Amino acid sequence: MKHTVSFLSLWLASIFVIFPQFTDARPQPKSIAFRNGRQKNGYHSGTKRQLSGASCAAPAAQSISAPDINPWASLSDDEAASVLKWLFGQPTLNLTATADAGEWDNTVLLVELMEPNKTDVISYLDGNGTAPSRYAHVVLDHRASVDPYYQDLLVGPLPVSNVTTRMQPLTYPYTRQTEGKIRNLDADSNTLYSEWLYKVSASILDITLDLFNGSVLGLDNDTLDVWGIDPLWQYDGVIRWDTFWSLPTTEMDSGTLLPLGLFFKSNVTGRDPSKWTLDGWLYNDIFYATTDEFRTAYYSPGFEKLPMNIDGEWAWTDQAGDIPPLDTNFPPMSVAPSGSRYFADPEQKYVKWMDFEFYISFSRDTGMHLHDIRYKGERIIYELGLQEALAHYAGNDPVQSGTAYLDTYYGFGTYAFELVKGYDCPSHATYMNTTFYTAETTHTHIDSICLFEVDSNYPIQRHSTSAYVSATKNIFFTVRTVCTVGNYDYMFSYEFHMDGSINVNVRASGYIQSAFFAKNGDYGYQIHDALSGSMHDHVLNFKIDFDILGTANTMTTSTNVPVSEVYPWSDGQTRNTMKLQRTQITNEDEGKLDWTSNGATQYIIQNLDQLNEYGNPRGYRILPSSPTIHVTIENSSNLVNAAQWATHDIFVTRQHDTEPRSAYPYNTQDVANPAINFNDFFDGESLLQEDIVVWFNLGMHHVPHTGDLPNTVFSTAHSGLQIMPLNYLPRDPSRETVNQVRIQYAGGNTSQVVEFGQQEPTCSIDVESVQPDLEKYVGDVVIRKFPYDPNNPYFETDSIE
Amino acid sequence: MKHTVSFLSLWLASIFVIFPQFTDARPQPKSIAFRNGRQKNGYHSGTKRQLSGASCAAPAAQSISAPDINPWASLSDDEAASVLKWLFGQPTLNLTATADAGEWDNTVLLVELMEPNKTDVISYLDGNGTAPSRYAHVVLDHRASVDPYYQDLLVGPLPVSNVTTRMQPLTYPYTRQTEGKIRNLDADSNTLYSEWLYKVSASILDITLDLFNGSVLGLDNDTLDVWGIDPLWQYDGVIRWDTFWSLPTTEMDSGTLLPLGLFFKSNVTGRDPSKWTLDGWLYNDIFYATTDEFRTAYYSPGFEKLPMNIDGEWAWTDQAGDIPPLDTNFPPMSVAPSGSRYFADPEQKYVKWMDFEFYISFSRDTGMHLHDIRYKGERIIYELGLQEALAHYAGNDPVQSGTAYLDTYYGFGTYAFELVKGYDCPSHATYMNTTFYTAETTHTHIDSICLFEVDSNYPIQRHSTSAYVSATKNIFFTVRTVCTVGNYDYMFSYEFHMDGSINVNVRASGYIQSAFFAKNGDYGYQIHDALSGSMHDHVLNFKIDFDILGTANTMTTSTNVPVSEVYPWSDGQTRNTMKLQRTQITNEDEGKLDWTSNGATQYIIQNLDQLNEYGNPRGYRILPSSPTIHVTIENSSNLVNAAQWATHDIFVTRQHDTEPRSAYPYNTQDVANPAINFNDFFDGESLLQEDIVVWFNLGMHHVPHTGDLPNTVFSTAHSGLQIMPLNYLPRDPSRETVNQVRIQYAGGNTSQVVEFGQQEPTCSIDVESVQPDLEKYVGDVVIRKFPYDPNNPYFETDSIE
Repeated sequence: MKHTVSFLSLWLASIFVIFPQFTDARPQPKSIAFRNGRQKNGYHSGTKRQLSGASCAAPAAQSISAPDINPWASLSDDEAASVLKWLFGQPTLNLTATADAGEWDNTVLLVELMEPNKTDVISYLDGNGTAPSRYAHVVLDHRASVDPYYQDLLVGPLPVSNVTTRMQPLTYPYTRQTEGKIRNLDADSNTLYSEWLYKVSASILDITLDLFNGSVLGLDNDTLDVWGIDPLWQYDGVIRWDTFWSLPTTEMDSGTLLPLGLFFKSNVTGRDPSKWTLDGWLYNDIFYATTDEFRTAYYSPGFEKLPMNIDGEWAWTDQAGDIPPLDTNFPPMSVAPSGSRYFADPEQKYVKWMDFEFYISFSRDTGMHLHDIRYKGERIIYELGLQEALAHYAGNDPVQSGTAYLDTYYGFGTYAFELVKGYDCPSHATYMNTTFYTAETTHTHIDSICLFEVDSNYPIQRHSTSAYVSATKNIFFTVRTVCTVGNYDYMFSYEFHMDGSINVNVRASGYIQSAFFAKNGDYGYQIHDALSGSMHDHVLNFKIDFDILGTANTMTTSTNVPVSEVYPWSDGQTRNTMKLQRTQITNEDEGKLDWTSNGATQYIIQNLDQLNEYGNPRGYRILPSSPTIHVTIENSSNLVNAAQWATHDIFVTRQHDTEPRSAYPYNTQDVANPAINFNDFFDGESLLQEDIVVWFNLGMHHVPHTGDLPNTVFSTAHSGLQIMPLNYLPRDPSRETVNQVRIQYAGGNTSQVVEFGQQEPTCSIDVESVQPDLEKYVGDVVIRKFPYDPNNPYFETDSIE
Repeated sequence: MKHTVSFLSLWLASIFVIFPQFTDARPQPKSIAFRNGRQKNGYHSGTKRQLSGASCAAPAAQSISAPDINPWASLSDDEAASVLKWLFGQPTLNLTATADAGEWDNTVLLVELMEPNKTDVISYLDGNGTAPSRYAHVVLDHRASVDPYYQDLLVGPLPVSNVTTRMQPLTYPYTRQTEGKIRNLDADSNTLYSEWLYKVSASILDITLDLFNGSVLGLDNDTLDVWGIDPLWQYDGVIRWDTFWSLPTTEMDSGTLLPLGLFFKSNVTGRDPSKWTLDGWLYNDIFYATTDEFRTAYYSPGFEKLPMNIDGEWAWTDQAGDIPPLDTNFPPMSVAPSGSRYFADPEQKYVKWMDFEFYISFSRDTGMHLHDIRYKGERIIYELGLQEALAHYAGNDPVQSGTAYLDTYYGFGTYAFELVKGYDCPSHATYMNTTFYTAETTHTHIDSICLFEVDSNYPIQRHSTSAYVSATKNIFFTVRTVCTVGNYDYMFSYEFHMDGSINVNVRASGYIQSAFFAKNGDYGYQIHDALSGSMHDHVLNFKIDFDILGTANTMTTSTNVPVSEVYPWSDGQTRNTMKLQRTQITNEDEGKLDWTSNGATQYIIQNLDQLNEYGNPRGYRILPSSPTIHVTIENSSNLVNAAQWATHDIFVTRQHDTEPRSAYPYNTQDVANPAINFNDFFDGESLLQEDIVVWFNLGMHHVPHTGDLPNTVFSTAHSGLQIMPLNYLPRDPSRETVNQVRIQYAGGNTSQVVEFGQQEPTCSIDVESVQPDLEKYVGDVVIRKFPYDPNNPYFETDSIE
């Protein structure tokens, strides 16, 4: 709680402009502060085409009203507050407000919209149905018990009424049926430090002082940190391995580059720290069963003390080194002379660009999803969005070996921070806010989704002859968020093209999680003094629920195969050639697929009942647009059943309202028996002309090298999938744009320049005025929901520390 | 020869400005007309940073003098003319000027620079050596013989002197040693039409009129065309299959979309057309051994006449269909407020951007190559460029089945046409000219290479915490050409990034070569009335001659492998995890490689003698940046030994001055015994710390669907390779740029916006004035070399008709 009265009084003067709705406490739709690109002056909004010399148009998205109420819209402030009030009125829950709660209190972890069932949404959007009833998805953290657990509840219908609102265990989206309950291995996170990790560290204070010139005792002057594996070992009690890290010496977030190479094992089964046991130490690849054993060895002659990693400029991202020639000249940039050529309804989070349109939703676990993506008026995708991200490490030390982050445990929505204008998105982008719930508050990430259109700087079509040349600009539209889950920054970009294709792109930057370098050359490169770039796989699972001209779809494959054939015309000779081999994925037993060797197989989602003029099913093909991976490790000891979606490149399943997601944020808490075991989706159901869902993985095998210091770069850490029409339309729809030219020429002259009604802007751009004002970066805005205090928003941004 | 006196008199008024060197006949270096982006007025060149309101800088590249004379520079006008004069002075060659030559005359096909040996160039660039002697590479077309052949000659040294200049058969770059001679199967291309194809067509005029309402007789009113397979069948004499096509009805180049489905086979062995034989007809998948048999069937009851493909709007690229919403508003575009931030020496075709620099060469066969690519002053790549492009079709008809274009036969340099400003490259790009030789003339492709820098619109680095966010712009530099080989437009882009990485990107647009649709569903989709999108593989072979800190390099591999291991700390338990398995490609027997399943293997070119501070060899990794392929067909009946470079994704060989290229443009003329059989490069030589060359393939399996009509789109037909530093520098060099920001923030305010000395431009861009003037598109300029006529350039652009 960093706000103060004096800060607030200053800030409230401006809030009436930015969040006018905050001054009105009446029930109303959730506000979304939709703002322009915060340009400095120099632009007049609303002017689109002006006379020569006049300023070009402002970039704000064009106004539009969504055709429907967004059924995936986040809970409004009032909805969330009323649910919380209702929950706190249920004595059986025995709830304590988070701010007041200890480790033995029950708290509310989450209140957000329960995504409505597809069945209900479709009948609403396509038929005469009414909007689906809204329910809250609530997660309680039951810790007032020796067996703490999370519980998912459904509370509704909304608005809350003492007559109709009920709560019930949320069970239907999970493959494990345990009343929405899953155990909580993290219930004693404070005690773990105060009663265990700091005490263990204190027990070898002499050694940490000698070896690391530092200590971690839970004091303000700690110079070290201690943390370890995720998920915990769960095969025989609950085991954790922790290791020591140097704390960064500046505000730069370099901590994950500073491991110190000393590890210890703890059995932390149960909630009584007095029963926890220290089960060994590891240093320089030598295991010591007890602290005494370790200390004795440490003070024995010949004990090899390894160097340590010391924070410094090498670990900081600031400009350093010789500035390259001409680099201080301002670089090229994208401008939008005619203003934005897309529409947005920020209230409904509805977006329309050219012949594409869709709704946006946002959740704590997985961040931004796109819904009801329509192209030329027809739905092609019901839902497209991230499900889960795995970062699976390996190493000769137990912490790297034991690390297999399932990032939705931390949350993507939670960490979708404000974007940096002009850096994360072009200066002419427009922005949307997003919200997530935590600790009886709703946080609004200001300007955390950006929308923009740019020229790809290569044409989408061209052809030259000796008489003419034709070329068409490749202008495409992007919706983007960045989620920083601890050390890593994931950039998610959904790109829409004039040929009807959509690209899903993930890039990774930020700090690597490194390993201490000690006899682990088989798990990475030494990249600094005592540092190993710890090998790991990033696998990010996405859901695409295709609805190609209806929900009855089929995945077909078409494979280029070498063949030897005799033809009627081949003189009886056998010809070595190739042909297409086509199959259908008939049922879920065939539903686990990989990209094939030499890219031989095309995967196509078709509606076999919707044939084009030439008898071919209309469809969309999916293909990598840049390399993708699935997880290297087979039957991971860390994951067991918690991430079965990571084992292949593509999965196809039958759509069920009971299988809305491939992953569950607390799967790490019970890896052998997770709430959602994706494998259980595969039970042989028919996939022929059914409502099918495709789950695909993006990712990278990451073996960090020196170029990952201080940060991994987006330019090389990149994975993408392309969704392209295949026999979907009679021909290439990019022919519809006027942004093309045909030049007829001969004898050194052009005889004709055909521009198809393009209009050139005749305005001026004041380059300084279109630069974003980065002084206005604010971070997250918080509103307290219980007690409900909508008139006193304050700023607070929380990252994973 | 389209120029006239009146045209020339008009044009000569301007030529003094554009090609001033044309007025000076003294010996001088080959001129390269290097011009700015042909902006309309509104820009003042040379001004870089101006006061608010002033116009922004002009985009011309900054001036620089290349550190050396470009040893790969094309022959100068005078060099080429003097070589031709010398050749025509050699009576033994019995040469006839092309304009006067018939099919039984000897002509000069090519005069261009013989690329100097690497050995000589390295000693020149790195040592005290003098510039390598220049030699001309000459190709003669010996047709004054019953056994016509091409012959490669070396003529030099240059400048020509009656004392020192000699000619000798060029043999050392070829694996087949036949005095540089290879047979010519295309010697009678005029006779083939006049004495054979038109006559065959005339022999069934009744049928073409009835079936296609047209004819092809070599007359001006022909409405049909006839052409066929490439390469010809060579297993038993010389066999060709041809088929009928409709001619386009407009200037649009839609001919390859108009096959008619009637095929005939000819034995055209030898040069005497009276001995050629017609060996059969094919229609609707039925083979007829003779014309009589075909005619009899045709007029029999029940003969099935198939529909034909008729030219029309469906086949034209012009704007058509409903214009999407807001599309007529001018779209976003890239601008360069500070002008260009790169240097070019157009005379030497030397380019420098940030810490990268290189030379450009250009050849008839393969177009643009980059040489001596240095990064931070050290050479990393000696040569990077296209070698050959295969388009291998398949089908149930003999023409599709028999088509396996090896495009350097036609030439990439020949068809690298003028780029379309603002479409092929951003409006602020700068351009270079290129030249190629044909028929005693040198053609200059005006503005056929573009250089530009753009913002990728995503950062190269970013990281967020609750206290700060840092982000760095990803500004990258591109060198681009487009080569239109007949129906297809290949765009080649070499992209340089601030992290030290280079991307090689190929995109394909233009018209597909289609098939007639008749019982060939296994070879493609029906995409129009009687049209099949004929399946084909594009495979494009590139050479990278890496020189990482010297020529002694090694390719190592690092593979992510799943393992089950017991560790000192794992309680005796076996853990399922992964590790790295490293190998070296020790000799050429191991030199044929594929990208591995799940992208598990990294391929790294390292210098094992140049270790970084942490003992790891400095190197560069290669990896696909978008999907790549090798050829599907095994032991192609069409190609036999002519394209052995297409069978895998990557090849590694020992560098030899005798193995400069993987392919030879006339390999199609003798597919079983080609002049360069790439397989012969592999003879077990050691690759450990040797000068190694990597040959890699880009490409796509193309199964055209309706979205390929009228043209394939660059947005989906894309293949790329990334060349990224791996342990090459102590850390990420993108930290050197000032185009980054760190914003410290808290409580809704920024406490600091650190911009590292960035300077914002304070100028204005008149958007209209930066639009390219497309009325100035001119095509190619031609100068006659024999007789040498440097003062009378004229315009003529030739595409493959």
